Amino acid sequence: MNKFNIKEIEETIGVSFNENKLLKTSLTHSSYANQHKDQEYNERYEFIGDAILQLCVTEYLFLNYKEKSEGELTKIRSLIVCENSLYEIGCKLKLGSFIRISRGEELTGGRERVSIIADAVEALIAGIYLDKGLEFVKDFILGHFQIIINMAINNDIVLDYKTKLQEELQKTGEVSIVYELTKYEGPPHRRKFFTTVIVDNKEFGSGDGYSKKEAEQNAAKEALKILEEVNE
Amino acid sequence: MNKFNIKEIEETIGVSFNENKLLKTSLTHSSYANQHKDQEYNERYEFIGDAILQLCVTEYLFLNYKEKSEGELTKIRSLIVCENSLYEIGCKLKLGSFIRISRGEELTGGRERVSIIADAVEALIAGIYLDKGLEFVKDFILGHFQIIINMAINNDIVLDYKTKLQEELQKTGEVSIVYELTKYEGPPHRRKFFTTVIVDNKEFGSGDGYSKKEAEQNAAKEALKILEEVNE
Repeated sequence: MNKFNIKEIEETIGVSFNENKLLKTSLTHSSYANQHKDQEYNERYEFIGDAILQLCVTEYLFLNYKEKSEGELTKIRSLIVCENSLYEIGCKLKLGSFIRISRGEELTGGRERVSIIADAVEALIAGIYLDKGLEFVKDFILGHFQIIINMAINNDIVLDYKTKLQEELQKTGEVSIVYELTKYEGPPHRRKFFTTVIVDNKEFGSGDGYSKKEAEQNAAKEALKILEEVNE
Repeated sequence: MNKFNIKEIEETIGVSFNENKLLKTSLTHSSYANQHKDQEYNERYEFIGDAILQLCVTEYLFLNYKEKSEGELTKIRSLIVCENSLYEIGCKLKLGSFIRISRGEELTGGRERVSIIADAVEALIAGIYLDKGLEFVKDFILGHFQIIINMAINNDIVLDYKTKLQEELQKTGEVSIVYELTKYEGPPHRRKFFTTVIVDNKEFGSGDGYSKKEAEQNAAKEALKILEEVNE
Protein backbone atom coordinates (compact mmCIF):
# COMPACT_ATOMS: atom_id res chain seq x y z
CA MET A 1 0.00 0.00 0.00
CA ASN A 2 2.86 2.36 0.72
CA LYS A 3 4.30 2.17 -2.78
CA PHE A 4 4.04 5.76 -3.87
CA ASN A 5 3.15 5.74 -7.57
CA ILE A 6 3.54 9.34 -8.72
CA LYS A 7 2.06 8.70 -12.16
CA GLU A 8 -1.07 7.00 -10.83
CA ILE A 9 -1.63 9.79 -8.31
CA GLU A 10 -1.12 12.52 -10.92
CA GLU A 11 -3.65 10.84 -13.20
CA THR A 12 -6.19 10.50 -10.42
CA ILE A 13 -5.93 14.06 -9.17
CA GLY A 14 -5.52 15.47 -12.69
CA VAL A 15 -2.37 17.46 -11.96
CA SER A 16 1.10 16.78 -13.33
CA PHE A 17 3.85 18.09 -11.04
CA ASN A 18 7.11 19.68 -12.16
CA GLU A 19 8.65 18.89 -8.80
CA ASN A 20 7.58 15.45 -7.59
CA LYS A 21 8.92 16.11 -4.12
CA LEU A 22 6.12 18.64 -3.51
CA LEU A 23 3.49 16.02 -4.28
CA LYS A 24 5.28 13.47 -2.12
CA THR A 25 5.48 15.82 0.88
CA SER A 26 1.81 16.81 0.45
CA LEU A 27 0.81 13.19 0.86
CA THR A 28 3.16 12.19 3.67
CA HIS A 29 1.63 12.03 7.14
CA SER A 30 3.76 12.84 10.18
CA SER A 31 3.43 9.25 11.42
CA TYR A 32 5.29 8.05 8.32
CA ALA A 33 8.03 10.66 8.67
CA ASN A 34 8.50 9.65 12.31
CA GLN A 35 9.36 6.13 11.19
CA HIS A 36 11.39 6.88 8.08
CA LYS A 37 14.52 8.99 8.05
CA ASP A 38 14.72 12.26 6.13
CA GLN A 39 11.12 12.33 4.97
CA GLU A 40 9.37 15.66 4.98
CA TYR A 41 5.73 15.49 6.05
CA ASN A 42 2.70 17.58 5.27
CA GLU A 43 1.92 19.52 8.47
CA ARG A 44 3.53 22.80 7.39
CA TYR A 45 1.86 22.44 4.00
CA GLU A 46 -1.56 22.36 5.70
CA PHE A 47 -0.72 25.73 7.27
CA ILE A 48 -0.33 27.45 3.91
CA GLY A 49 -2.86 25.26 2.05
CA ASP A 50 -5.60 26.41 4.40
CA ALA A 51 -4.80 30.09 3.66
CA ILE A 52 -4.75 29.49 -0.11
CA LEU A 53 -8.09 27.68 0.00
CA GLN A 54 -9.57 30.44 2.14
CA LEU A 55 -8.46 33.17 -0.29
CA CYS A 56 -9.65 31.35 -3.43
CA VAL A 57 -13.11 30.65 -2.01
CA THR A 58 -13.34 34.16 -0.53
CA GLU A 59 -12.45 35.79 -3.84
CA TYR A 60 -14.94 33.62 -5.73
CA LEU A 61 -17.75 34.55 -3.35
CA PHE A 62 -16.72 38.21 -3.35
CA LEU A 63 -16.73 38.46 -7.14
CA ASN A 64 -19.82 36.35 -7.84
CA TYR A 65 -22.25 37.35 -5.10
CA LYS A 66 -22.13 41.13 -5.11
CA GLU A 67 -25.57 41.40 -3.56
CA LYS A 68 -24.53 39.50 -0.43
CA SER A 69 -23.19 41.28 2.65
CA GLU A 70 -19.92 40.52 4.41
CA GLY A 71 -21.88 38.71 7.15
CA GLU A 72 -23.73 36.47 4.71
CA LEU A 73 -20.55 35.68 2.79
CA THR A 74 -18.69 34.80 5.99
CA LYS A 75 -21.44 32.38 6.96
CA ILE A 76 -21.52 30.78 3.51
CA ARG A 77 -17.74 30.45 3.46
CA SER A 78 -17.72 28.62 6.79
CA LEU A 79 -19.98 25.98 5.25
CA ILE A 80 -17.62 25.57 2.29
CA VAL A 81 -14.21 25.67 3.95
CA CYS A 82 -14.59 23.02 6.63
CA GLU A 83 -13.35 19.56 7.50
CA ASN A 84 -16.44 17.85 6.09
CA SER A 85 -16.08 19.24 2.59
CA LEU A 86 -12.31 18.73 2.58
CA TYR A 87 -12.92 15.11 3.55
CA GLU A 88 -15.45 14.61 0.75
CA ILE A 89 -13.03 15.99 -1.83
CA GLY A 90 -10.20 13.89 -0.38
CA CYS A 91 -12.34 10.78 -0.81
CA LYS A 92 -13.14 11.65 -4.43
CA LEU A 93 -9.42 12.11 -5.09
CA LYS A 94 -8.72 8.77 -3.36
CA LEU A 95 -6.12 10.42 -1.13
CA GLY A 96 -6.75 7.77 1.53
CA SER A 97 -5.18 5.13 -0.67
CA PHE A 98 -2.26 7.34 -1.72
CA ILE A 99 -1.17 8.95 1.53
CA ARG A 100 1.96 7.63 3.22
CA ILE A 101 1.20 6.77 6.84
CA SER A 102 2.89 4.59 9.45
CA ARG A 103 2.06 0.93 9.86
CA GLY A 104 0.46 1.74 13.21
CA GLU A 105 -1.87 4.34 11.70
CA GLU A 106 -2.63 1.94 8.86
CA LEU A 107 -3.74 -0.77 11.28
CA THR A 108 -6.02 1.56 13.23
CA GLY A 109 -7.90 2.90 10.22
CA GLY A 110 -5.76 5.98 9.52
CA ARG A 111 -6.48 5.89 5.80
CA GLU A 112 -10.18 6.43 6.46
CA ARG A 113 -9.77 9.00 9.22
CA VAL A 114 -11.59 12.24 8.47
CA SER A 115 -8.87 14.52 9.87
CA ILE A 116 -6.02 12.79 8.02
CA ILE A 117 -7.86 12.93 4.68
CA ALA A 118 -9.03 16.53 5.17
CA ASP A 119 -5.52 17.68 6.16
CA ALA A 120 -4.07 15.92 3.11
CA VAL A 121 -6.38 17.93 0.84
CA GLU A 122 -5.12 21.20 2.36
CA ALA A 123 -1.53 19.98 1.98
CA LEU A 124 -2.14 18.97 -1.62
CA ILE A 125 -3.52 22.45 -2.34
CA ALA A 126 -0.26 23.85 -0.94
CA GLY A 127 1.80 21.44 -3.05
CA ILE A 128 -0.02 22.47 -6.22
CA TYR A 129 0.33 26.17 -5.34
CA LEU A 130 4.06 25.83 -4.73
CA ASP A 131 4.51 23.93 -7.99
CA LYS A 132 2.20 25.88 -10.28
CA GLY A 133 1.17 29.17 -8.68
CA LEU A 134 -2.06 30.79 -7.62
CA GLU A 135 -4.06 30.80 -10.86
CA PHE A 136 -3.59 27.08 -11.43
CA VAL A 137 -4.50 26.09 -7.89
CA LYS A 138 -7.50 28.44 -8.01
CA ASP A 139 -8.90 26.45 -10.95
CA PHE A 140 -8.17 23.19 -9.14
CA ILE A 141 -9.96 24.39 -5.99
CA LEU A 142 -12.97 25.90 -7.74
CA GLY A 143 -13.37 22.79 -9.91
CA HIS A 144 -13.53 20.53 -6.89
CA PHE A 145 -15.48 22.87 -4.61
CA GLN A 146 -18.07 24.02 -7.16
CA ILE A 147 -20.79 21.60 -6.07
CA ILE A 148 -20.19 22.41 -2.40
CA ILE A 149 -20.19 26.16 -3.12
CA ASN A 150 -23.52 25.86 -4.96
CA MET A 151 -24.99 23.85 -2.10
CA ALA A 152 -23.80 26.41 0.46
CA ILE A 153 -25.26 29.29 -1.58
CA ASN A 154 -28.59 27.48 -1.90
CA ASN A 155 -28.58 26.62 1.79
CA ASP A 156 -28.52 22.90 0.98
CA ILE A 157 -25.72 21.93 3.34
CA VAL A 158 -26.91 19.91 6.29
CA LEU A 159 -24.73 19.97 9.37
CA ASP A 160 -26.90 17.88 11.65
CA TYR A 161 -28.48 14.94 9.84
CA LYS A 162 -30.31 13.62 12.90
CA THR A 163 -32.21 16.88 13.40
CA LYS A 164 -32.90 17.16 9.67
CA LEU A 165 -34.25 13.58 9.55
CA GLN A 166 -36.53 14.23 12.49
CA GLU A 167 -37.86 17.42 10.85
CA GLU A 168 -38.49 15.61 7.56
CA LEU A 169 -40.19 12.59 9.11
CA GLN A 170 -42.39 14.61 11.45
CA LYS A 171 -43.76 16.84 8.70
CA THR A 172 -46.69 14.43 8.38
CA GLY A 173 -47.17 13.73 12.08
CA GLU A 174 -45.42 12.05 15.00
CA VAL A 175 -43.15 9.08 14.28
CA SER A 176 -40.82 7.14 16.53
CA ILE A 177 -37.14 7.35 15.63
CA VAL A 178 -34.68 5.05 17.37
CA TYR A 179 -30.95 4.69 16.81
CA GLU A 180 -29.79 1.17 17.54
CA LEU A 181 -26.15 0.22 17.97
CA THR A 182 -25.98 -3.07 16.04
CA LYS A 183 -22.32 -3.93 16.59
CA TYR A 184 -18.85 -2.58 17.14
CA GLU A 185 -15.42 -3.81 16.23
CA GLY A 186 -11.74 -3.00 16.78
CA PRO A 187 -9.72 -2.23 19.91
CA PRO A 188 -11.07 0.33 22.46
CA HIS A 189 -8.85 3.18 21.25
CA ARG A 190 -9.95 2.68 17.63
CA ARG A 191 -13.42 1.23 17.91
CA LYS A 192 -15.79 1.36 14.95
CA PHE A 193 -19.51 1.57 15.67
CA PHE A 194 -22.40 0.40 13.44
CA THR A 195 -25.81 1.96 13.93
CA THR A 196 -29.22 1.46 12.36
CA VAL A 197 -31.97 4.04 12.46
CA ILE A 198 -35.39 2.52 13.07
CA VAL A 199 -38.45 4.53 12.13
CA ASP A 200 -41.78 3.28 13.45
CA ASN A 201 -40.22 -0.13 14.05
CA LYS A 202 -38.82 -0.45 10.53
CA GLU A 203 -35.11 -0.32 9.60
CA PHE A 204 -34.56 2.84 7.63
CA GLY A 205 -30.83 3.27 7.09
CA SER A 206 -27.52 2.43 8.66
CA GLY A 207 -24.15 4.02 9.15
CA ASP A 208 -20.82 3.54 10.83
CA GLY A 209 -18.18 5.73 12.40
CA TYR A 210 -15.45 5.95 14.98
CA SER A 211 -17.82 7.30 17.61
CA LYS A 212 -21.46 6.49 18.38
CA LYS A 213 -22.35 10.05 17.42
CA GLU A 214 -20.66 9.78 14.03
CA ALA A 215 -22.33 6.42 13.33
CA GLU A 216 -25.76 7.86 14.18
CA GLN A 217 -25.20 10.91 11.98
CA ASN A 218 -24.19 8.64 9.10
CA ALA A 219 -27.24 6.43 9.62
CA ALA A 220 -29.47 9.54 9.56
CA LYS A 221 -27.66 10.75 6.42
CA GLU A 222 -28.44 7.45 4.67
CA ALA A 223 -32.04 7.56 5.87
CA LEU A 224 -32.39 11.08 4.41
CA LYS A 225 -31.09 9.80 1.05
CA ILE A 226 -33.62 6.95 1.08
CA LEU A 227 -36.38 9.40 2.00
CA GLU A 228 -35.39 11.68 -0.88
CA GLU A 229 -35.51 8.79 -3.37
CA VAL A 230 -38.93 7.74 -2.07
CA ASN A 231 -40.25 11.29 -2.42
CA GLU A 232 -38.92 11.86 -5.93
CA MET B 1 -12.38 66.74 6.38
CA ASN B 2 -14.53 64.71 4.02
CA LYS B 3 -12.93 66.12 0.91
CA PHE B 4 -11.47 62.99 -0.63
CA ASN B 5 -8.13 63.98 -2.16
CA ILE B 6 -7.04 60.95 -4.19
CA LYS B 7 -3.61 62.37 -4.98
CA GLU B 8 -2.79 63.15 -1.36
CA ILE B 9 -3.91 59.69 -0.25
CA GLU B 10 -1.93 57.95 -2.97
CA GLU B 11 1.19 59.86 -1.99
CA THR B 12 0.74 59.03 1.68
CA ILE B 13 0.13 55.32 1.18
CA GLY B 14 2.67 55.08 -1.65
CA VAL B 15 0.33 53.40 -4.13
CA SER B 16 -1.02 54.91 -7.32
CA PHE B 17 -4.35 53.39 -8.38
CA ASN B 18 -5.45 52.64 -11.94
CA GLU B 19 -9.04 52.62 -10.83
CA ASN B 20 -9.71 55.38 -8.31
CA LYS B 21 -13.08 53.90 -7.39
CA LEU B 22 -11.36 50.97 -5.70
CA LEU B 23 -9.41 53.32 -3.44
CA LYS B 24 -12.54 55.31 -2.70
CA THR B 25 -14.59 52.26 -1.74
CA SER B 26 -11.72 50.95 0.43
CA LEU B 27 -11.86 54.12 2.47
CA THR B 28 -15.62 54.57 2.72
CA HIS B 29 -17.21 53.50 5.99
CA SER B 30 -20.75 52.10 6.00
CA SER B 31 -21.95 55.11 8.06
CA TYR B 32 -21.03 57.42 5.16
CA ALA B 33 -22.75 55.21 2.58
CA ASN B 34 -25.89 55.16 4.70
CA GLN B 35 -26.11 58.95 4.44
CA HIS B 36 -25.03 59.42 0.81
CA LYS B 37 -26.76 57.84 -2.14
CA ASP B 38 -25.01 55.32 -4.39
CA GLN B 39 -21.79 55.13 -2.44
CA GLU B 40 -20.18 51.73 -2.11
CA TYR B 41 -18.62 51.08 1.27
CA ASN B 42 -15.77 48.91 2.45
CA GLU B 43 -17.38 46.04 4.38
CA ARG B 44 -17.20 43.48 1.58
CA TYR B 45 -13.62 44.59 0.89
CA GLU B 46 -12.65 43.71 4.46
CA PHE B 47 -13.92 40.17 3.80
CA ILE B 48 -11.44 39.58 0.99
CA GLY B 49 -8.70 41.84 2.38
CA ASP B 50 -8.47 39.71 5.49
CA ALA B 51 -7.97 36.54 3.39
CA ILE B 52 -5.28 38.23 1.24
CA LEU B 53 -3.41 39.45 4.32
CA GLN B 54 -3.65 36.01 5.90
CA LEU B 55 -2.21 34.30 2.81
CA CYS B 56 0.65 36.78 2.34
CA VAL B 57 1.79 36.56 5.96
CA THR B 58 1.31 32.77 6.00
CA GLU B 59 3.40 32.32 2.87
CA TYR B 60 6.14 34.60 4.20
CA LEU B 61 6.36 32.63 7.45
CA PHE B 62 6.17 29.31 5.61
CA LEU B 63 9.03 30.17 3.26
CA ASN B 64 11.29 31.95 5.74
CA TYR B 65 10.98 29.88 8.92
CA LYS B 66 11.42 26.33 7.71
CA GLU B 67 12.58 25.15 11.12
CA LYS B 68 9.32 26.17 12.81
CA SER B 69 6.40 23.76 13.14
CA GLU B 70 2.83 24.41 12.00
CA GLY B 71 1.84 25.06 15.63
CA GLU B 72 4.57 27.64 16.20
CA LEU B 73 3.79 29.39 12.91
CA THR B 74 0.07 29.53 13.72
CA LYS B 75 0.82 31.18 17.06
CA ILE B 76 3.22 33.69 15.51
CA ARG B 77 0.73 34.52 12.76
CA SER B 78 -2.00 35.27 15.29
CA LEU B 79 0.27 37.94 16.81
CA ILE B 80 0.85 39.49 13.39
CA VAL B 81 -2.61 39.38 11.83
CA CYS B 82 -4.70 41.04 14.51
CA GLU B 83 -6.64 44.24 15.12
CA ASN B 84 -3.80 45.84 17.07
CA SER B 85 -1.25 45.60 14.28
CA LEU B 86 -3.77 46.60 11.63
CA TYR B 87 -4.58 49.65 13.73
CA GLU B 88 -0.91 50.60 14.07
CA ILE B 89 -0.39 50.37 10.32
CA GLY B 90 -3.61 52.31 9.70
CA CYS B 91 -2.31 55.10 11.94
CA LYS B 92 1.02 55.22 10.10
CA LEU B 93 -0.87 55.50 6.80
CA LYS B 94 -3.08 58.24 8.31
CA LEU B 95 -6.22 56.37 7.25
CA GLY B 96 -8.14 58.01 10.09
CA SER B 97 -7.89 61.37 8.37
CA PHE B 98 -8.73 60.00 4.91
CA ILE B 99 -11.63 57.67 5.59
CA ARG B 100 -15.12 58.86 4.68
CA ILE B 101 -17.42 58.49 7.68
CA SER B 102 -20.76 60.00 8.63
CA ARG B 103 -21.02 63.24 10.58
CA GLY B 104 -22.35 61.27 13.53
CA GLU B 105 -19.35 58.95 13.59
CA GLU B 106 -17.08 61.96 13.12
CA LEU B 107 -18.50 63.67 16.20
CA THR B 108 -18.15 60.58 18.39
CA GLY B 109 -14.50 59.92 17.58
CA GLY B 110 -14.96 57.49 14.68
CA ARG B 111 -11.74 58.59 13.00
CA GLU B 112 -9.73 57.37 15.98
CA ARG B 113 -11.70 54.20 16.59
CA VAL B 114 -9.48 51.10 16.54
CA SER B 115 -12.00 48.90 14.71
CA ILE B 116 -12.75 51.47 11.99
CA ILE B 117 -9.05 52.06 11.29
CA ALA B 118 -8.15 48.35 11.40
CA ASP B 119 -11.02 47.46 9.06
CA ALA B 120 -9.96 50.21 6.65
CA VAL B 121 -6.49 48.67 6.40
CA GLU B 122 -7.99 45.30 5.44
CA ALA B 123 -10.23 47.05 2.91
CA LEU B 124 -7.28 48.99 1.48
CA ILE B 125 -5.37 45.71 1.05
CA ALA B 126 -8.37 44.42 -0.93
CA GLY B 127 -8.49 47.59 -3.04
CA ILE B 128 -4.80 47.30 -3.88
CA TYR B 129 -5.18 43.58 -4.70
CA LEU B 130 -8.14 44.23 -7.00
CA ASP B 131 -6.26 47.06 -8.73
CA LYS B 132 -2.79 45.56 -8.96
CA GLY B 133 -2.84 41.84 -8.22
CA LEU B 134 -1.29 39.55 -5.66
CA GLU B 135 2.42 40.22 -6.13
CA PHE B 136 2.04 43.97 -5.73
CA VAL B 137 -0.13 43.74 -2.63
CA LYS B 138 2.25 41.15 -1.16
CA ASP B 139 5.08 43.71 -1.33
CA PHE B 140 2.83 46.36 0.19
CA ILE B 141 1.82 44.07 3.05
CA LEU B 142 5.31 42.74 3.79
CA GLY B 143 6.74 46.26 3.68
CA HIS B 144 4.32 47.50 6.30
CA PHE B 145 4.22 44.36 8.44
CA GLN B 146 7.97 43.68 8.49
CA ILE B 147 8.60 45.27 11.88
CA ILE B 148 5.59 43.52 13.40
CA ILE B 149 6.65 40.18 11.87
CA ASN B 150 10.14 40.55 13.33
CA MET B 151 8.71 41.42 16.72
CA ALA B 152 6.38 38.40 16.64
CA ILE B 153 9.24 36.08 15.65
CA ASN B 154 11.42 37.45 18.46
CA ASN B 155 8.55 37.17 20.93
CA ASP B 156 8.61 40.94 21.48
CA ILE B 157 4.89 41.58 21.11
CA VAL B 158 3.19 42.51 24.34
CA LEU B 159 -0.52 41.81 24.55
CA ASP B 160 -1.12 42.86 28.12
CA TYR B 161 0.81 45.98 29.10
CA LYS B 162 -0.48 46.07 32.69
CA THR B 163 0.88 42.59 33.44
CA LYS B 164 4.13 43.36 31.64
CA LEU B 165 4.58 46.60 33.63
CA GLN B 166 3.97 44.78 36.91
CA GLU B 167 6.54 42.12 35.99
CA GLU B 168 9.13 44.72 35.05
CA LEU B 169 8.60 46.88 38.13
CA GLN B 170 8.61 43.98 40.57
CA LYS B 171 11.89 42.54 39.31
CA THR B 172 13.66 44.50 42.02
CA GLY B 173 11.11 43.99 44.80
CA GLU B 174 7.56 44.94 45.71
CA VAL B 175 6.18 48.25 44.46
CA SER B 176 2.70 49.70 44.63
CA ILE B 177 1.02 50.25 41.27
CA VAL B 178 -2.22 52.22 41.16
CA TYR B 179 -4.28 53.22 38.11
CA GLU B 180 -6.10 56.48 38.74
CA LEU B 181 -8.91 57.75 36.55
CA THR B 182 -8.07 61.46 36.25
CA LYS B 183 -10.99 62.59 34.08
CA TYR B 184 -13.45 61.61 31.42
CA GLU B 185 -15.17 63.52 28.66
CA GLY B 186 -17.87 63.08 26.05
CA PRO B 187 -21.40 61.66 26.17
CA PRO B 188 -22.04 58.31 27.93
CA HIS B 189 -22.17 56.27 24.71
CA ARG B 190 -18.86 57.71 23.54
CA ARG B 191 -17.00 58.52 26.71
CA LYS B 192 -13.25 58.95 26.66
CA PHE B 193 -11.32 58.04 29.81
CA PHE B 194 -7.96 59.43 30.99
CA THR B 195 -5.88 57.37 33.36
CA THR B 196 -2.57 57.87 35.14
CA VAL B 197 -0.49 55.02 36.50
CA ILE B 198 1.06 55.81 39.87
CA VAL B 199 4.07 53.80 41.02
CA ASP B 200 5.06 54.14 44.66
CA ASN B 201 3.08 57.41 44.83
CA LYS B 202 4.76 58.94 41.78
CA GLU B 203 3.06 59.57 38.45
CA PHE B 204 4.63 57.26 35.91
CA GLY B 205 2.67 57.52 32.68
CA SER B 206 -0.78 58.28 31.38
CA GLY B 207 -3.10 57.10 28.68
CA ASP B 208 -6.59 57.48 27.32
CA GLY B 209 -9.15 55.28 25.64
CA TYR B 210 -12.81 54.65 25.07
CA SER B 211 -13.02 52.26 28.00
CA LYS B 212 -11.35 52.30 31.41
CA LYS B 213 -9.53 49.12 30.45
CA GLU B 214 -8.16 50.63 27.26
CA ALA B 215 -7.06 53.79 29.08
CA GLU B 216 -5.25 51.73 31.73
CA GLN B 217 -3.52 49.59 29.11
CA ASN B 218 -2.35 52.74 27.31
CA ALA B 219 -1.10 54.24 30.56
CA ALA B 220 0.85 51.05 31.26
CA LYS B 221 2.21 51.08 27.71
CA GLU B 222 3.53 54.62 28.22
CA ALA B 223 4.99 53.68 31.58
CA LEU B 224 6.84 50.77 29.94
CA LYS B 225 8.30 53.15 27.35
CA ILE B 226 9.49 55.49 30.11
CA LEU B 227 10.96 52.55 31.99
CA GLU B 228 12.81 51.42 28.87
CA GLU B 229 14.31 54.87 28.36
CA VAL B 230 15.40 55.04 31.99
CA ASN B 231 17.08 51.61 31.74
CA GLU B 232 18.94 52.32 28.49
